[in-house]
Amino acid sequence: MSFMITRKFSVSIASRIGKKSLLSKVCKPEDTIKFFEDGQALGWSGFTPVGYPKVVPVTVADYVEKTGKKMKFDLYIGASVGAETEDRWAKLGMINRRWPYQTGKNIANGINTGKIQMGDIHLCNYASNLKFGFFTKERKGKLDLGIIEVTEILPDGGLVLAGSVGAVPEVCDISEKLILELNTSMPSYLGLHDIPPDEVPPNRRPYLISRVDDRIGKLYVPVDTEKIVAIVESTKPDNGRPLSPPDEVSEKIAQNILDFLENEVHAGRAPPDLLPLQSGVGNIANAVVAGLAKGQFRNVKVWTEVLQDTMLDFFDTGKLDFATATALTLSTEGFERLYKNWEEYKQKICLRPQQITNNAEMIRRMGVIGMNTPVEVDIYGHANSTLIGGTRMINGLGGSNDFLRNCYISMMHCPSVRPTKTDPTGITCIVPKAPHIDHTEHDLDVIVTEQGLADLRGLAPRQRAMEIINKCAHPDYKPILTDYFNTAYQHCLKQKAAHEPQILSKVFKMQEYLEKNGTMKVDKW
Amino acid sequence: MSFMITRKFSVSIASRIGKKSLLSKVCKPEDTIKFFEDGQALGWSGFTPVGYPKVVPVTVADYVEKTGKKMKFDLYIGASVGAETEDRWAKLGMINRRWPYQTGKNIANGINTGKIQMGDIHLCNYASNLKFGFFTKERKGKLDLGIIEVTEILPDGGLVLAGSVGAVPEVCDISEKLILELNTSMPSYLGLHDIPPDEVPPNRRPYLISRVDDRIGKLYVPVDTEKIVAIVESTKPDNGRPLSPPDEVSEKIAQNILDFLENEVHAGRAPPDLLPLQSGVGNIANAVVAGLAKGQFRNVKVWTEVLQDTMLDFFDTGKLDFATATALTLSTEGFERLYKNWEEYKQKICLRPQQITNNAEMIRRMGVIGMNTPVEVDIYGHANSTLIGGTRMINGLGGSNDFLRNCYISMMHCPSVRPTKTDPTGITCIVPKAPHIDHTEHDLDVIVTEQGLADLRGLAPRQRAMEIINKCAHPDYKPILTDYFNTAYQHCLKQKAAHEPQILSKVFKMQEYLEKNGTMKVDKW
Repeated sequence: MSFMITRKFSVSIASRIGKKSLLSKVCKPEDTIKFFEDGQALGWSGFTPVGYPKVVPVTVADYVEKTGKKMKFDLYIGASVGAETEDRWAKLGMINRRWPYQTGKNIANGINTGKIQMGDIHLCNYASNLKFGFFTKERKGKLDLGIIEVTEILPDGGLVLAGSVGAVPEVCDISEKLILELNTSMPSYLGLHDIPPDEVPPNRRPYLISRVDDRIGKLYVPVDTEKIVAIVESTKPDNGRPLSPPDEVSEKIAQNILDFLENEVHAGRAPPDLLPLQSGVGNIANAVVAGLAKGQFRNVKVWTEVLQDTMLDFFDTGKLDFATATALTLSTEGFERLYKNWEEYKQKICLRPQQITNNAEMIRRMGVIGMNTPVEVDIYGHANSTLIGGTRMINGLGGSNDFLRNCYISMMHCPSVRPTKTDPTGITCIVPKAPHIDHTEHDLDVIVTEQGLADLRGLAPRQRAMEIINKCAHPDYKPILTDYFNTAYQHCLKQKAAHEPQILSKVFKMQEYLEKNGTMKVDKW
Repeated sequence: MSFMITRKFSVSIASRIGKKSLLSKVCKPEDTIKFFEDGQALGWSGFTPVGYPKVVPVTVADYVEKTGKKMKFDLYIGASVGAETEDRWAKLGMINRRWPYQTGKNIANGINTGKIQMGDIHLCNYASNLKFGFFTKERKGKLDLGIIEVTEILPDGGLVLAGSVGAVPEVCDISEKLILELNTSMPSYLGLHDIPPDEVPPNRRPYLISRVDDRIGKLYVPVDTEKIVAIVESTKPDNGRPLSPPDEVSEKIAQNILDFLENEVHAGRAPPDLLPLQSGVGNIANAVVAGLAKGQFRNVKVWTEVLQDTMLDFFDTGKLDFATATALTLSTEGFERLYKNWEEYKQKICLRPQQITNNAEMIRRMGVIGMNTPVEVDIYGHANSTLIGGTRMINGLGGSNDFLRNCYISMMHCPSVRPTKTDPTGITCIVPKAPHIDHTEHDLDVIVTEQGLADLRGLAPRQRAMEIINKCAHPDYKPILTDYFNTAYQHCLKQKAAHEPQILSKVFKMQEYLEKNGTMKVDKW
């Protein structure tokens, strides 16, 4: 069997099923409804939102909508999936629990009004803990049903996944039954993945990856094919994530980061071709990658969680050598570009399980430089990535701390302010204390806004505060924050407790002020 | 050369210097004063507080005290060292900066009154970042002087350390000059250490450690001997850390943990000989180890930061196979026991750099079960390990998050309450929100007090809150915390922001109440 032969698009489903005994499992979407029962725990493929099952979940939703039958599930997926699936399920009241990340108005509303239980955990630990059975202790560590999008089934039954790997190896391992969606609208992705053996402690071995292009696993997810109860054809392409175009603020932030990186190389703290880069999603991340594509660095490598369209531009400049991720978070146009130069891009991209891309072992060993966007950071360098006002869930933690906690240099970037309805600079992203903390002061090295860059390495807390306020805060908030810091310092000195000054009774005054006045510009402390 | 020959105690210094050209560097402690200059950055050996230089720092302090000469230093040490050194230096105003952990009344006071800058960072990252030059950017990543306690110098100049490794490899690497204290009051520790190559990204290779007794390095720290400017004899034994005896509370906590571990084995989530254990310091940790020594588990392995006296008891039962740490934090009696059965214990103990013992790579791979004591935890599972009232530094973060963030099961244990002067249950260790967060809700799996054990795995925030309050809070605080949680939930539901309910204006009311009333028992929310 040659692994590297690429099949044509729009093939028949049979031509993508190498293990012929499985042909008997091919069925219509409606035929899978019988496998669903109220109260089940389900695992899906998919990651931000690519490679997720696009047919069966919609079929089940149609069925529930039509029949009014009560069906509620626990959903375990690598990260977010398309709104037409999980968000519609939420709208129909079909979700009881959702781990560990989600996107959609209805699902977020369900979570924030107490109707859906959501668990938020580092994406690497999530995949491992799923495998260890920690989330489904009451089901002896099992899931009832896994629904997996694949692009080919090999003669030995191995599953060739689509544009994401996520937590599929773990889901396949612990699911009692599997439903496969074979997507014939895209090429077989055979050759793009690297799936290492999925072991449990204490017998795990080192991951022998020292370079971003090292491969240590199989090209497919091995499964017990007896678990496969249905194979459904899908012809729906990935929904894609439209690219957020860089704006003036994100371009300034990107420039601050590029200047910093150049200085690190100059100071001998990073090699001329940098260290492997991790970059989050969103328009700041796009601006950074766009800046790199225009910039001086050559032979750059990327070790990250998701690849966005700008990475294709970066490849096209010849300056990016190789990129590893767990998902291709491309736009519809991005996928078109990818497929157009499929054979070429394929040589430079490797998709791995989120347990591998987000693993402390490789991130630390290779010295990844990590960049992510928080909701807000505080003057000592704690960051909030998940809960607006400390209580309202947006999407989830994702892999941000997997990277920031273990990076060679960990950076967070955000605008210095955000608008409210009444004040264009009504919300400061630099606050006295983050109302929810996902990343501690011990994890973050560098904070960047369009105002400037605070290099916190080697600074003690009070020095960090001054550096962050002076370099990163918006001019409207600099005097307010400085005043708070000085007041808190004097307050704490009196109690001989001034290592990291705060006044607990006033520390969230800005948030309370915002609620009442539509701005965080408190008049006095 | 045989590596395993143990030298006799109280030998001549010359017999412990294998590289004979270094004999010319032997000098009196006073002769080292000329190497010290105001404003230098110093690196010392030592870790909690063992293996630190005991002669030269005292000589320099005597000199400063006698002459009144102004001398102020930046101190970079693996963790804490003996009070007669760093705490005396603090008292004499000799410390400008201290990274990353300390013990002593004077040094803590200096830090909390703004006189000493202290940086607090995960101990694994600390050692790496020291090597990367992140703390001494203005000195081109160098330290002026390293002061290292050794027990032997080998013919090739390799340094055989004493009872701790800590950050010595990194200090030796980046120090311009080295002063050695050769301690002849203890045996040569040759054979006890494992010092892997100390590489920088991107060229780091996997650490090929899959079992706690795997060795991958040298028995000594290789150094450029031209840096060695002085060798001073020391005859001072390690000061030792007296053992905190278990009390009723710690024994109850230990029993809760042992019951939990038995249940994990029973449920098939841990093997019968458990997984490698990490255990912090203090009387709860001692009670846990004492419980294990009496308990049913056989062939136990320990992968931890420091070994306390109870580990010797555990070895003596025959139930503990092997233990790895970065320091032998034994009492004076513990060291006597160790030396008495030196040849036997030596086969079962390995000391490694803190960059290795605390490294995410091995902790995650081997599936360490980690247990540490916080100051307090909150109802969602965030923990404070460092700052009382959110502002006053105690000792430092240490390696707690290195373990908790990467463990197979991460546990924190503390009493449910602590006394104030006026109320024996005046302080609850379960609070609505931790006033400082060193470990996030995403990092912790299990919270334990003498009241019970909260298993948070697979629980969403509101479920976590109920589990922690019901299982871990003291009966005096259960109704108060439940009332807060219910009030906060209703408050946040109105705003459709109830994923993790909090009322920011009231969240630190217990801390404010304590300041005024000597108890955290608030009368209403």
